Amino acid sequence: MTPLFNKVPMARLKRYLPILDWGRRYDTETATSDLVAAVIVTIMLIPQSLAYALLAGLPAEMGLYASILPLVAYAIFGTSRALAVGPVAVVSLMTAAAVGHLGLTDPAAIALAAITLAFISGVILLAMGVFRLGFLANFLSHPVIAGFITASGILIATSQLKHILGIDAHGHDLIELATSLWAHLPETNFITLVIGAATTGFLFWVRKGLQPVLVGWGLGPRLADILAKAGPVAAVALTTLAVFASGLDRFGVAIVGDVPRGLPPLTVPSFSLEIWTGLFGSALLISIIGFVESVSVAQTLAAKKRQRIEPDQELIGLGASNVAAAVSGGYPVTGGFARSVVNYDAGAETPAAGAFTAIGILFAAMFLTPLIYYLPTATLAATIIVAVLSLVDFGILKRTWNYSKADFSAVAATILLTLGFGVEIGVSAGVVLSVLLYLYRSSRPHIAEVGLVEGTEHFRNILRHKVVTDPSVVTLRVDESLFFANARYLEDYIYARVVGDEGLRHVILMFSAINEIDFSALESLEAINERLSGMGLKLHLSEVKGPVMDRLQRSHFLNVLSGEVFLSQYQACRTLATSCPKATGEVSQLAMSTARN
Amino acid sequence: MTPLFNKVPMARLKRYLPILDWGRRYDTETATSDLVAAVIVTIMLIPQSLAYALLAGLPAEMGLYASILPLVAYAIFGTSRALAVGPVAVVSLMTAAAVGHLGLTDPAAIALAAITLAFISGVILLAMGVFRLGFLANFLSHPVIAGFITASGILIATSQLKHILGIDAHGHDLIELATSLWAHLPETNFITLVIGAATTGFLFWVRKGLQPVLVGWGLGPRLADILAKAGPVAAVALTTLAVFASGLDRFGVAIVGDVPRGLPPLTVPSFSLEIWTGLFGSALLISIIGFVESVSVAQTLAAKKRQRIEPDQELIGLGASNVAAAVSGGYPVTGGFARSVVNYDAGAETPAAGAFTAIGILFAAMFLTPLIYYLPTATLAATIIVAVLSLVDFGILKRTWNYSKADFSAVAATILLTLGFGVEIGVSAGVVLSVLLYLYRSSRPHIAEVGLVEGTEHFRNILRHKVVTDPSVVTLRVDESLFFANARYLEDYIYARVVGDEGLRHVILMFSAINEIDFSALESLEAINERLSGMGLKLHLSEVKGPVMDRLQRSHFLNVLSGEVFLSQYQACRTLATSCPKATGEVSQLAMSTARN
Repeated sequence: MTPLFNKVPMARLKRYLPILDWGRRYDTETATSDLVAAVIVTIMLIPQSLAYALLAGLPAEMGLYASILPLVAYAIFGTSRALAVGPVAVVSLMTAAAVGHLGLTDPAAIALAAITLAFISGVILLAMGVFRLGFLANFLSHPVIAGFITASGILIATSQLKHILGIDAHGHDLIELATSLWAHLPETNFITLVIGAATTGFLFWVRKGLQPVLVGWGLGPRLADILAKAGPVAAVALTTLAVFASGLDRFGVAIVGDVPRGLPPLTVPSFSLEIWTGLFGSALLISIIGFVESVSVAQTLAAKKRQRIEPDQELIGLGASNVAAAVSGGYPVTGGFARSVVNYDAGAETPAAGAFTAIGILFAAMFLTPLIYYLPTATLAATIIVAVLSLVDFGILKRTWNYSKADFSAVAATILLTLGFGVEIGVSAGVVLSVLLYLYRSSRPHIAEVGLVEGTEHFRNILRHKVVTDPSVVTLRVDESLFFANARYLEDYIYARVVGDEGLRHVILMFSAINEIDFSALESLEAINERLSGMGLKLHLSEVKGPVMDRLQRSHFLNVLSGEVFLSQYQACRTLATSCPKATGEVSQLAMSTARN
Repeated sequence: MTPLFNKVPMARLKRYLPILDWGRRYDTETATSDLVAAVIVTIMLIPQSLAYALLAGLPAEMGLYASILPLVAYAIFGTSRALAVGPVAVVSLMTAAAVGHLGLTDPAAIALAAITLAFISGVILLAMGVFRLGFLANFLSHPVIAGFITASGILIATSQLKHILGIDAHGHDLIELATSLWAHLPETNFITLVIGAATTGFLFWVRKGLQPVLVGWGLGPRLADILAKAGPVAAVALTTLAVFASGLDRFGVAIVGDVPRGLPPLTVPSFSLEIWTGLFGSALLISIIGFVESVSVAQTLAAKKRQRIEPDQELIGLGASNVAAAVSGGYPVTGGFARSVVNYDAGAETPAAGAFTAIGILFAAMFLTPLIYYLPTATLAATIIVAVLSLVDFGILKRTWNYSKADFSAVAATILLTLGFGVEIGVSAGVVLSVLLYLYRSSRPHIAEVGLVEGTEHFRNILRHKVVTDPSVVTLRVDESLFFANARYLEDYIYARVVGDEGLRHVILMFSAINEIDFSALESLEAINERLSGMGLKLHLSEVKGPVMDRLQRSHFLNVLSGEVFLSQYQACRTLATSCPKATGEVSQLAMSTARN
């Protein structure tokens, strides 16, 4: 061992290099499982990587390159056993939007911009991992993600219609796309349309209908399932052969054409300040969206086997993958939902499955590219359409509508804004709206006046439960932490409640739901205490939590407080109220049965 | 009565026109009080309005115009009995910054921009009032306001040093100002410096030292106080006379010069899209800052007389004032802190005091302007410096440091950014930082494992209190509403707690501090329930609040929940735990005495 190695404890090294952990327990059995999974994922990934590169507006080979080195990097640094990293639909669409902002026309400049985007995104992810900023992803709420994915699926499917129709059309939002498609509709190439429509129909049927047929033929359900996954490869082979055999490309059917054969090139991202400025915002969005998509699927799959993933290390894994993409001619990558599920179902045991997949794609890049010269782009478009339409889930609108109008409006706004203004504005607006809705709600907290549930030490809302109260005491339970946005609301609420109530002597604030009191709220409490004193009323606190009490003790509020601080509301009631029935210690069956109503 | 009037209920009209309410009870006695207050405020306002116009980079007469019609408009629409509306220091500084962005050089264009700024600001305030958006002002936390006012005071005082030195200097932040002052220092006009320094010294002395001297001469303390308020007018008169008598203006002492005499002009704001785009952001900030400053002082003064102000109607009052300023040659106005306190102390009873003040200023504009031809700008600068230094309060740094590091960092950042980058960036960054700090804190909530305080029905943190627990039951109290930003944190926390705890059978989530569960958190709860079931653990809820229960009942979570929902945690404990001591109903003196510790 060198001195350098002695200085780095092994546990710490394992945290940053998970491969050291699972690598030393690697055996033939695990390798076999990983290999089988890798073969299936490779078959699925070859057409997908070509198709997504097309979606991103890049040459097809960049999709292959993005599926080699990035997978190896993730195998070294990632913590998920089943995550399949590579080009994915949503990130490809976002890449197209990001590079589109730059207004480039030269294909080499566009490719360089995509490479640079992957590099910036990788650096952002690595930085977030090192500084443990993974929690930032939590600010993408589930409704915003669901709305964004649904809208992106529609945008992507619509953007691919041009390849099915064999026409030219552009746009980053639904209106632009639809207008452009409509304008070019008369130019439709009918042979392309036949190929595209037939492939789409075939792929939809393969997805749902092939597996039962194969089982009917006597195949095992698992083998039938794997064969069904090869549907896109079959479509690629058949349509390529058809075009090759009948020379349809001479009738205007767009084909993939020359794809360079060989190892991924060594590339260097641009370091032009102008390009970085133009791409940084997009790279940040791509990083966060990619991370969230990746972590969601990785967590779901890990939980099935009682494993855990480490979100901050996932950032490092994905960051390394994107940097790897940038130095080997790729574009931004992340963990894909569908491929990861296939990888898991096919039996992947360790990240090595990803490395084996990379070998499969490397083989394809070195030897198979001449075979796809006659591959119609309509076939690739059909692959994309079938893949992304499974992401579209309008059910989220109904589920959130039933549960909460605020969540519903976040979903609806994200969907509408993504469709109407493109992916970047859509998801940014969704996040901002979620945060604003949350702040708005916490700025007008629910405040309940509570009374004693007779026979217990339990206090409940006087409007919802049969409770005992005393006319000289009012107890208010504030159902929100106190902070600058609701401090003034509380002041107004208390004055409105106490003014004109002649018999009142004591105001108790029940702090059971107050988890934090910031400086603004402290000043409001001081003002409330002072003004209530002026009206001859004492202010008391009850059920103040430990951390809140610690904080209050550092101010002079407790010194000037006109009343007492009680450990429990029951003690406050027994001490201050003229009539406060004693608890019996019995559990009322009636109370229990109503708890769920 | 006309049919139109019949259709509008009087109560509603009174809400929008408070003058209808206090106006009909107006009598001679109230009028006398208002008149006395108006005379004092007028004497104070004449030099201030000239000085603040200078600070805003505008001709002196615009300060006078901003002190006439806006005061009448506020008297009609405002709800505060004591608020003195007109030009104020911070808003004047913000006006200078806003107009400065446009890069104008023609004085007429600058004046038109300031008029337009008042108009946009008025429209924003009116719109906020009509749509009842006054709560938006709550997002300016007390620390941010305190930091902003302190830093603005320093910036304003520094910006006035050029007039005291008789040199030319510019800048919107402290570094620009200091560099510019330093560069021009050799050009100092020493006669100006003598006038400026002497006036500043005189005004500081008047502020603290004059009143006791006058009392010593046998004057009543109240009259002495009023006379002390006339200090700036005396300084104006004395220095003007000195320059006039000795012809110091010929030695380079800058003077106010020609100020047009007459009624305020009728002006029309610009409706150029370019100017509106350039000013809108600044107008929004000016509106909110002006509103917050105004409402704080109005609320404080109203509380002293057990009166209430109506924040949403205040927006309409201030909006009307700014529109009035825009049509009569003024610039943005708001309620000033110092003048309002003087108005209140001098006995103002109704908003009519403001209207009387307007008459006083109108008189000055029509007849007194020739008298201030020889008024040195150094005198006005001295007035501003003495006024704004009283706003500087570095004590807020110490108070927030002791109470909470998060609040401290909001103050410190606001002060530093305001000094370093100017008022607009300073206050915007302060607001954004406050919101981010709040979100960060609520994204990692305090979670306490609780147990029973023996002999009671009360549950407390096992780490802070002597409590009874059962190895088969774990009760977690989450001290924060559950929402998208902390849903995943909760999942992780629960898994980390239960994995490896072999004796465990039941997990109880005590919901006493949970005020809201959004859709993201609902999905997390469903995931937690499912995964705990998989581990053979039952998930129970206790003390779920009414509004939260209503919400949960609209989802299918309660149908799949593996355990029960208990009305109180005590019932959960008695039902699930093998040992859960019965409550005695007695109040423990020991427990009470420790509540404050």
